[in-house]
Amino acid sequence: MKIYFAGSIRGGREDAALYLEIIEFLKNYGEVLTEHVGDPSLTSNGDGGPADQYIHNRDLEWLQSADVLVAEVTIVSMGVGYEIGRAIEAGKKVLCLFRPEYGRNLSAMISGCPDLEIKKYTTIDEAQKWVADYFKRYF
Amino acid sequence: MKIYFAGSIRGGREDAALYLEIIEFLKNYGEVLTEHVGDPSLTSNGDGGPADQYIHNRDLEWLQSADVLVAEVTIVSMGVGYEIGRAIEAGKKVLCLFRPEYGRNLSAMISGCPDLEIKKYTTIDEAQKWVADYFKRYF
Repeated sequence: MKIYFAGSIRGGREDAALYLEIIEFLKNYGEVLTEHVGDPSLTSNGDGGPADQYIHNRDLEWLQSADVLVAEVTIVSMGVGYEIGRAIEAGKKVLCLFRPEYGRNLSAMISGCPDLEIKKYTTIDEAQKWVADYFKRYF
Repeated sequence: MKIYFAGSIRGGREDAALYLEIIEFLKNYGEVLTEHVGDPSLTSNGDGGPADQYIHNRDLEWLQSADVLVAEVTIVSMGVGYEIGRAIEAGKKVLCLFRPEYGRNLSAMISGCPDLEIKKYTTIDEAQKWVADYFKRYF
């Protein structure tokens, strides 16, 4: 099982610690291809070294090889939206995790998409329960 | 010629007046399906009346029927990212317009995507020149 985890990088790193916790939990179910998204040393300037086209093509290859995309969608991110769009158009399974109390309005293109699941949560325990529930149902 | 214009709605409406100017210019080249994106009365709460799934399915149908996607990508928007991802995965032409002076880092998934064009601009005149250049080359 290959899992692509998507979270904001250049859109803002406020949730990096949370991403790391979700990634650690996802490892119970398979290989997380995008472990660097939870790296606390990764700033909103991005991946540091590699050029953008290298990052895009590497991440796209991972996305294409993944069995499932799990996205934390609370922080607004163009890249996460792009990854969800490509995954849905390619017919992949997508689970979105969202914290409504953050005060953001989730895009209608995500919340209204009939081909993905969105689960709202407050604590990491709840997020883990939604992940466990999703993998139990689909895999 | 059918044109899908993408700009931020729930991600923030600071650029709504600019979207309107771009949309007006795009009308020289064809029908702009998403004219409401430039509506100054449309707030970041979204489309008001319709449910999210109605919005998603209506916009997706427009996107699927469009010959080209023109996206203003300066304000970070999950929906714009999603639309770009779906359009690229479906093999559609995509032109992105970006104002670097705004201080945001454009996502590597957009700036590094080899299947779209990104044009940087400062004034509406420059944006119009990039649009004119793009349509001249491709249509």
